[in-house]
Order: sequence, then C-alpha cells, then structure tokens
Amino acid sequence: MSTENFDAVDIIRTKRDRGTLTAAQIDWTIDAYTRGVIAEEQMAALNMAILLNGMDRAEISRWTTAMIDSGQRMDFSTLRTPAGIAMRTTDKHSTGGVGDKITLPLAPLVAVFGVAVPQLSGRGLGHTGGTLDKLEAIPGWRAELTHTEMMKQLSSVGAVICAAGASLAPADKKLYALRDVTGTVESIPLIASSIMSKKIAEGTGALVLDVKVGSGAFMKNLADARELARTMVNLGTDAGVNTVALLTNMDTPLGFTAGNAIEVTESIDVLAGGGPADVVELTIALATEMLAGAGITDVDVAAALKDGRAMDKWRAMIAAQGGDNGAPLPVARESDIVYAQADGVITSLDAMDVGVAAWRLGAGRARRQDPVQAGAGVRLHAKPGDVVRRGAPLATMLTDTPERFERARELLEGAATIAPAGSRPDMALVIDRITAS
Amino acid sequence: MSTENFDAVDIIRTKRDRGTLTAAQIDWTIDAYTRGVIAEEQMAALNMAILLNGMDRAEISRWTTAMIDSGQRMDFSTLRTPAGIAMRTTDKHSTGGVGDKITLPLAPLVAVFGVAVPQLSGRGLGHTGGTLDKLEAIPGWRAELTHTEMMKQLSSVGAVICAAGASLAPADKKLYALRDVTGTVESIPLIASSIMSKKIAEGTGALVLDVKVGSGAFMKNLADARELARTMVNLGTDAGVNTVALLTNMDTPLGFTAGNAIEVTESIDVLAGGGPADVVELTIALATEMLAGAGITDVDVAAALKDGRAMDKWRAMIAAQGGDNGAPLPVARESDIVYAQADGVITSLDAMDVGVAAWRLGAGRARRQDPVQAGAGVRLHAKPGDVVRRGAPLATMLTDTPERFERARELLEGAATIAPAGSRPDMALVIDRITAS
Repeated sequence: MSTENFDAVDIIRTKRDRGTLTAAQIDWTIDAYTRGVIAEEQMAALNMAILLNGMDRAEISRWTTAMIDSGQRMDFSTLRTPAGIAMRTTDKHSTGGVGDKITLPLAPLVAVFGVAVPQLSGRGLGHTGGTLDKLEAIPGWRAELTHTEMMKQLSSVGAVICAAGASLAPADKKLYALRDVTGTVESIPLIASSIMSKKIAEGTGALVLDVKVGSGAFMKNLADARELARTMVNLGTDAGVNTVALLTNMDTPLGFTAGNAIEVTESIDVLAGGGPADVVELTIALATEMLAGAGITDVDVAAALKDGRAMDKWRAMIAAQGGDNGAPLPVARESDIVYAQADGVITSLDAMDVGVAAWRLGAGRARRQDPVQAGAGVRLHAKPGDVVRRGAPLATMLTDTPERFERARELLEGAATIAPAGSRPDMALVIDRITAS
Repeated sequence: MSTENFDAVDIIRTKRDRGTLTAAQIDWTIDAYTRGVIAEEQMAALNMAILLNGMDRAEISRWTTAMIDSGQRMDFSTLRTPAGIAMRTTDKHSTGGVGDKITLPLAPLVAVFGVAVPQLSGRGLGHTGGTLDKLEAIPGWRAELTHTEMMKQLSSVGAVICAAGASLAPADKKLYALRDVTGTVESIPLIASSIMSKKIAEGTGALVLDVKVGSGAFMKNLADARELARTMVNLGTDAGVNTVALLTNMDTPLGFTAGNAIEVTESIDVLAGGGPADVVELTIALATEMLAGAGITDVDVAAALKDGRAMDKWRAMIAAQGGDNGAPLPVARESDIVYAQADGVITSLDAMDVGVAAWRLGAGRARRQDPVQAGAGVRLHAKPGDVVRRGAPLATMLTDTPERFERARELLEGAATIAPAGSRPDMALVIDRITAS
C-alpha cells in the first residue's frame, strides 16, 4: 500500500481523459474511498469515467488487489480432515440467473470427492434469486457461521454454504452500493473486479466461474459475456487461483422452478438421482471443472448423484447448519395457473419474464432489507422443445399474497413463444469454456 | 415544470448510453437535484456522462432553462432614468483570463451612452482574478447591494458592478460546487449552461461574451473556444437575449498588471485616456458590441475615454457603492524583481504562469472562503514584442508575505520566451466574432 498522497480530481481527470491510472493511484483511490477521504460523488464520477473509458488488464488487476487489501483474506492452508490430512479447496461463482439453484446440489457433490467447498453466498436482489434465500426456506437452517464453525464444518463435512462476512473486501461492498444508485453497474472492469476481489479474498485454491449469457442474465450477448469471463479468469490466474469459466445459456430458466422452497425441492430431486436434465447437466459440468481445478480428474461425478453419496453430504451439510432434513418445506398459501395460448412447440421461454414474475410473486426483493416469501415462485410445466396444446397449463404461480398474481401473469403469458409443430429450438447449455490467456 | 416522476438511475443510464434526455427528464433532474431528491453522487455520475457523451442543442437549452427556473429572474423592464425615460440594459461576461480588468473601465464607458449596465460579478478562484476582489481594494467600496439599491444606482449612474444574489439559478451554484470536486468542470454543455443560466436570469436585454482562448484561459484551443462561444450565443439568442461573442487572445496577460489594487490603478489609467494598448483596444471593442446590442451604433466610444466622460461615470459608480475615489489604494508590503535571462525580443509571455504567480503571491484564493491580499500581484515591465537585455527587470512581484516570492519566481523566470532580435510575435487580440447560427 502506497503512502503517497494524490488528488482525487486529478485521478478522475486522468481516467476521464482516457489515461491509465498508476498502481499507486489505484491503491490510494481504493484506500481513500474506504476511509471516506474520497467522497461518494467523486467515486461516482470516477466510476462513470471507468465505465465509459475502460481500464486495461494491469489497472483491473491492481483495482482488484486494492479492494482485497481493504479487508481480510481467508486462509485455508491449515484446513485438515479429522484424520489430519491437508484438504484442497475449490469454489464456484455464478453471475446470476433464473432458477439457478446449482450451488445446492453442486457443493455436496464436489465434497464427495474429498475436496473442501467453502461456498460464501449472497441474498438475491431483483429478478435473480439468492442461494441463501433458497436455503433459508429449510426450517432451522442458518446462513451466518463464525469462522471457527465454518472451518470445523469444512473439515468434518467438506462443504459449507454460508453468508460472506463483512471483513472481506469492504471497499467492494461500499463501491457496489454506490454503483447501484449511480448507473455504473454495467462496466466489465468494475463487475469483474467486484466479483473477483471477494472470491480471491475468500482464499480458495481453485475457482470455476459460471458466466451466464442470455435474456435472464446480466450479460445479454455472447461477446460481453466472453469478455467478462476472460477478464475474471485472468484476474484469478494472476492472483494464483486456478480459475476457469464456463459460458452457459440463460435464455431459459434452469429447471422447472424459480423461487426459494421449490428450488430446494428440485435440488433434492437432483441429489436423489433425478431432477431436470439441464440442472443435472450443469451440476455435473461445474463439478467436473471444480474437481479438475483441485487436481482431481479421474472420478465418476454422475455416479455420486445416482448412488446417494451426494445426498448424504447434503444432509450432513444442512444438519451441520441447524437445518431439519425431515421437516416439510414451506408451501405458498395461494396458487394460480397460466395456460398456453396456442398449439405447437415451445421455441423459447424467456428467463427474464419468469425471473421477474417470481420476484413479483414475492420470491425476490426490491431492496436489500426486504423479506422474501419462502413458498413463492413459479413452477413451469413445459420448457422449450415441449409440444403443448392451447389451454394446457404452462406455469403455476405461487404466493402468499394473491394480489400479486395479476402482474406476474402479465409476464408469464408473454414468456413462451409457441411455433407450429416441427420447429425445434437450439438448446446448448454450456456454450464455451474460457481459460487463462 | 413537469410534475412527472422519473428515476435518477434511468436518466443516468440514458445519457451514459448516448441517448437524448427529454425536456421533462431534464426539468425533473434539475428540480430534483435542487431539492436534494437526486443525490450528489447521482448528479456526479450524470455530469461525467454528459461530459463524455455530450448534449445536443435542445438538451443544453432545456438544461439552461431548468437552471434559470430553479431561482428568480431579474426584471429591468421598469428601469427608468430620473427623467422617466425607459432604459435599455446590456451586459458582458468574460470566461476568465489573467489581468482581465476590462469590466472596470467598460461598465462606466458604456453607461456614458445612456445604456444601463447591471454587471453582476464574482470573486476569483484559482489563477484568474475576480472583478469583485479587484474593486474591494478600493477603501469603502462594497459589493453587496440590495435589489432596490441596484435599481436606484442604475437609474442615477447607469452602471453597477456588484455581487450576484443567491436567488439567481441556485441549481447552478450547487452544480458548480459539485463539478469542481468531481473533475466535471471541462464540459462545454455544462460550462455554457452554467454561464448562460446566470446571465439570462439576470434579465439583460443584450449580452456580449468575451470568450478567452490561450494558455491563460479555460479554453486552450480555438476549436473548443469557438464551440463554447457558439453554444452560448445560441442559448442567449434562443432565450431572447441579443447575444454576440468575441473570441479573444489569452496567451498573454492583459495589460501590465495581474492582481487587485494594481489592476484598479491600471483601469483608472485607461479611464484617464491612457493605459496599455491591449486593455484599451479590448475595452473599446467590447463597449462597441455592448452598445450595438442595445441598438446604439453611431457613437465615438474612444472619445469618451479621452474626454473624461467615462472617468466621471466611474467615480460616480464607485462613490455610489461607498468607495472613496480620493483614498490611496493598498500597497503590498514587500516587492522583489524578476530579471530577463537573455538578450532579444520577447516572443511570448505565458499568461498561465503570470496568473499562477499572482495567485501564489496572494492575489487569488485556492478555496472560496480564503481572503485575498489587496496589494499582491505581478507588475510586468515588458510584453511580447518588446526588446530586452539580459538582466533587465521583467516583472515585479508584490506581496505582504515574502515567503511567497520563491514559488512565484519559479514560474515568472520561465514565463517569457526571448528570441534573437528580429523575431516578431503575432499579437491579434480579437480573433473572431460569433453571432447566432
């Protein structure tokens, strides 16, 4: 960390005029912002200049490091099994999609093979759900663990999904809140450094990024998604984390559910050896990458879903955090059905429409402090490729507050495109794999 | 003013993505910012997006109108001479230069011809001096007048130079303070709307803009200065003000003085029929334009400087605001001399170097609340075109605080370029005249 003093206006002007910020300028900027020496309005102007004029690889890397250095780093080097054997760690991050419950079956599945999965997750905001919101539908389950509890669970169970502490990259927390209200979220350098500062600070040895692209994703087109993936993979690699990214399709929701409790149920279906084909495919693809990142390549991942080993890990993981594996999950008080408007083949089912409908039904939140409904969401009855008849049920809407049905129905009635029989949609799920350049 | 409600983030995103803001969006933005509904950090992000992506003529015009509507407009339609004859008004605005004392002789000179000059001025910040700072060097003179006092003085004397009230374009005041700390000053749409919102709110019938270009000016190149001038002339014209701009050279300081009391003395020299040729030339050029804007074209402006009529107006104007025309002006306690480093012809004398030197000597201020030294500044002994010998005095530094000499000397020793005898600099003062397009 530099002890030099800089002038915030000079730094803003440099980026405004398409200049390159020095390492010392970046260190000072992040540190001074965290301490309140750079005012919110100055950081907002700098963010907009970065969004419009970009940062090069060295700038993004330093920006990320400076955000990591604003807080503590976790250290798993002392992690041991109960028998005293050192454990490797591997982690996954998704840029957010609709029906994306993959973390739930994925963490226990990977842990089956002796690699520790310290999965620090967040709550949802907007149309994409949050992993913690989903798990909190399980009676008794708690997201907040102490560091000691987390280390103990990783040692004994091998997998933990919990809330990230405030000590990781506090500059990022402050910066994200600012970007959210100043129209400066959509910058690839700022998105990449935000995600990677937290992930690198979490101290994992390997990392797999699930970069979503499509209507329900943050990145709407492949070129942007690819650039984001490359930027993040390079940041992870430069920081010594074994990092790879999969570009995956988010034009269509994952699985047949978007909500909280209903996504837990669908995840348990996958852990029981069943579940929707797309959820199973992506779970296995990501598990394979997470294990490969930790040096394990010669295992039959799919078998661990079929033979109950992943389910056993899941139950142990849930129980270790107070969750009652036997308790029934919350059910929404009210339901209503959306019907197909025509005969034919579903050629698309807009993930954004479904995600916003689930949000409107109460599964998501508009502000960070809002509660979510555990039982709310959308259950799909058909997916792209399915043949439907006019009047057949397309989706069931679930909520505790039926006045929400109307605005969700508006979206769901337009979500599906139905073409004359014979049409067949393109449904490749894993689009590309990005490694360090 | 629209009563619609908008979302600040949507508006920021629109401009960020090179969109055009609607009239209703602009009205809401300025009003909501003035009321504190749009936060400083949101306006900072919007300002940076405007700086980098621009605004079109309609947007700039509406932005200016919205800033005017954030406060009161002055109205001179009831202004009459003591004999009851309606008076026209005319005004001048300079974008700021070094040694720019032109307002001092100009306002009384124009008033000689029966046109009222309500010259609302500001204090200096940075390397350019402020008209009020200069006049405050005169014992007893006061800048703050009530509206009634101003109207009375305009009627009886015909000229007033005083501080602008807080009720004129308060949105601009708030916005300018924000731009100053967020690196968003240098935007032609924002500069033009800032200047013109105040000038239009001041209610003048005619306006002449002195747009400076060169090393000591805000605009360093002719293309930017021309664009700023055109933008402002169009804004004034669209608002019904008879507006014209002169582009004038600010590579070299105006006259032989940069400071406060010493610029008053030089102005009085001009009002006495003498003074530096460049100050006289620009005063006459601007007076001619100001009078033409008010419909008066067949008068001998120069004669009013030679025959004492302008001096009489000056004395009446100073006395009306409490100034003692007979009192000696403050003199700096200390002085020191900067000498020529070579034999030859001075081909350039950097206005910025001289301006910053005067500022460092105490004539200007770094923060709005700082005091200025009435006697401090730089007196030049040679100007471009003059032949000098090595060791001859180039400038005298004046200050009450001699520890300031060293840092001023650093600048002044490098300010002059001296070439072998025979070279002749190009010294056109009025570069162009811009009318409405």
